[in-house]
Amino acid sequence: MGLGLHTDLYQLTMAAGYFEAGKTQERATFELFVRRLPHNRNFIVAAGLAQAVEYLLNFRFTSEEIAYLRSLPQFAATSAAFFEMLAELRFTGDLFAVPEGTPLFAEEPFLTLRAPLIEAQIPETYLLATIGYQSLIATKAARVVKAAMGRGVIEFGTRRAHSPEAGVLAGRAAYIGGCTGTSNTETGLRFGVPVFGTAAHSWVMSFASERDSYEQLQKLLGENTVYLIDSYDTIEGARKAASLGRPLWGVRLDSGNPVELAPAVRKILDQAGLTDAKIMATGDLNEYKITELVAAGAPIDVFAVGTELATSADAPSLGVVYKLVELERGDDRRYTAKLSEDKHTLPGAKQIFRFASRDVLARSSECFSCGEGGVEALQRPVMVGGRLIEPLPTAAEARQHAAECLARLPGPCQSLFEGRESWRVELSPELAELAEQVRKGIPA
Amino acid sequence: MGLGLHTDLYQLTMAAGYFEAGKTQERATFELFVRRLPHNRNFIVAAGLAQAVEYLLNFRFTSEEIAYLRSLPQFAATSAAFFEMLAELRFTGDLFAVPEGTPLFAEEPFLTLRAPLIEAQIPETYLLATIGYQSLIATKAARVVKAAMGRGVIEFGTRRAHSPEAGVLAGRAAYIGGCTGTSNTETGLRFGVPVFGTAAHSWVMSFASERDSYEQLQKLLGENTVYLIDSYDTIEGARKAASLGRPLWGVRLDSGNPVELAPAVRKILDQAGLTDAKIMATGDLNEYKITELVAAGAPIDVFAVGTELATSADAPSLGVVYKLVELERGDDRRYTAKLSEDKHTLPGAKQIFRFASRDVLARSSECFSCGEGGVEALQRPVMVGGRLIEPLPTAAEARQHAAECLARLPGPCQSLFEGRESWRVELSPELAELAEQVRKGIPA
Repeated sequence: MGLGLHTDLYQLTMAAGYFEAGKTQERATFELFVRRLPHNRNFIVAAGLAQAVEYLLNFRFTSEEIAYLRSLPQFAATSAAFFEMLAELRFTGDLFAVPEGTPLFAEEPFLTLRAPLIEAQIPETYLLATIGYQSLIATKAARVVKAAMGRGVIEFGTRRAHSPEAGVLAGRAAYIGGCTGTSNTETGLRFGVPVFGTAAHSWVMSFASERDSYEQLQKLLGENTVYLIDSYDTIEGARKAASLGRPLWGVRLDSGNPVELAPAVRKILDQAGLTDAKIMATGDLNEYKITELVAAGAPIDVFAVGTELATSADAPSLGVVYKLVELERGDDRRYTAKLSEDKHTLPGAKQIFRFASRDVLARSSECFSCGEGGVEALQRPVMVGGRLIEPLPTAAEARQHAAECLARLPGPCQSLFEGRESWRVELSPELAELAEQVRKGIPA
Repeated sequence: MGLGLHTDLYQLTMAAGYFEAGKTQERATFELFVRRLPHNRNFIVAAGLAQAVEYLLNFRFTSEEIAYLRSLPQFAATSAAFFEMLAELRFTGDLFAVPEGTPLFAEEPFLTLRAPLIEAQIPETYLLATIGYQSLIATKAARVVKAAMGRGVIEFGTRRAHSPEAGVLAGRAAYIGGCTGTSNTETGLRFGVPVFGTAAHSWVMSFASERDSYEQLQKLLGENTVYLIDSYDTIEGARKAASLGRPLWGVRLDSGNPVELAPAVRKILDQAGLTDAKIMATGDLNEYKITELVAAGAPIDVFAVGTELATSADAPSLGVVYKLVELERGDDRRYTAKLSEDKHTLPGAKQIFRFASRDVLARSSECFSCGEGGVEALQRPVMVGGRLIEPLPTAAEARQHAAECLARLPGPCQSLFEGRESWRVELSPELAELAEQVRKGIPA
């Protein structure tokens, strides 16, 4: 697979059009950002950069893919020279981006890509899907972890993710957002994310008795044993688990009301002397229900969150867009913006300067570092001339970075509900002026 | 990649446990179904079987994957013999399933898998993610297509799908659900789904003037030309497009109020003699907004639906489960069910018999075909002994099948809103009796 066709058809017809119009010398700058934060989100945790880079490094068109394109009516008028160019096409541009794990706000670019127009246009679809999805899940994870108030959170959602591959990436993104680990084994191998698991109802049911299934599990997993105790009767299940003593990690509640069941199970474990045995809760959890369980004082040590985390169920999409902000041809540079009423964009390549309690969105050529202490420029060079300039942080490093950044956000920003004025993002005077100039100079 | 690790860790620890407990001779039967229909859904269009089969045919463990598993604490007590078995493991079981495109209701199995316990357990996660996601999207597509009342619907959602691979599968599933095609080019190549596209705002902005960009597009795409007319001013954009005359397919509206804009644009096209030019609407559409646009008489010919379709935004997950229903060891056969209050399941392998206005969920050994005319058994054999028994229908054939099945559903079932008693699913007396027997014989 050459990855080249993993895009909307119009990216490829536009590429053909740019080629036929002689626009192969133009260099374009695109930025990827969200116009508005989704429902109840006061920030977005950027994630997915590693997969975006992998795509840019490997993206090409196989002969089968080119033959397919040539068979389409949309390419009937396209010259053979275009397809010859396509066969050799590689990404040779520059990529600037914020490190994975960085919290961002509306209109702040996750990444800035500068490349010959065709190379910059085709990746749009893949970059949006990659960055958009992982950022969505890392953000949801940060919310769930916040709600758990120091208790562990594990990502268990692969089965309900939007395809098996989405499940693999959900595990990665949730880890970056603060989860302790994932149930997805492929995620463990591919990204070094810690993997966890328990046992299913089918395990319990495949033995002649619940007790038999517990004994076998204990023999198998030792200190990693987590008994699923609700297959028949939760309290009975807890008694059977407790009667087997050590070694064990603990038990899992997957149905019923945990506010009632968890204290009863805790008591059974404690009375058996298993005070260090843990209780895990699963079953359609989310940050709102976890807040309620924590507030009710339910003695739950670890939450495993599946469907709602891997699909970001209360906000299942992120309005990421990828917009042309500059075009260069030789010495001529044009700044571009979309001016339609409800979907306007800001022209020019940008930098995000983060101060203690606000951001300044500025032109990429501006410098704020001298004037004010503690300011940080969030976008950094990642690829130059199509090459990665240094290894990207691991998922574990991105997770650490996210935790540090999130800890610095003020309270209203960290609320699970929409906060007014939770973080200020200002435009620098230079950027505001550029936007005004572009607005006045609407091409006829 | 061996696909073997594309699963929850607990499937693999359970596999080790089954192996250590000597359960390698047991054959298990699992069924995949939804417990409840999601929000506003009166049916689910089954999709994803082709990818499920591809997985079962190719699923194995590479030596790298096995080495990773051996490094995990959860496998510390597992014997070397288990990993030797894993290295040779292939799917050798039987698969029964409803054809892709079949509408199903709560508790009706999409597929029934019978195999040695370990081979049946490990695929759970992948099968759920594959069938669950594609069925979710095929269902959403059927709703959007219904709302469009005969106007075309194209899937445009890859950029907001949950990962690039989800985008590829969304295009396939949306086509099965009734869309005319997709913008995802990889979907076109891989599954023969028709591909469509227009041009982006960046295309328009990359030229010195909007008119230049239109002229180039027309030269490139001829009869497939779709002008995006809202980059600066929609009415002005429509006038420029109309002034260029034929060839063209039509124009695309992507912002503003289409109820006001579409008639104005239609008038401009008609006055230029372009009565056959079409109007496409895009921009955060869904079945509810399309219903409104159609009801308002907006002269829109084709709807392209992105984010909400590729994420099934109003119901972003399907509660698919995979449950053990039978266990055989030699001549001994046990029927199993989960009995907990809020998540009970029905024991035994099943068949779905579809009558003119109701389904009967029966034991797989039952036969209804003699008694009543027009009854159809929906589950059919797909794989026997690990081999595909005949080529699966193409995406186009599945789409045709879906259209025929959906046309036969009664009105309340086809409503975009939840209908009471929209379709009856009864249990056969034999199945009800089996469920009662299993309930009475709870293992101690």
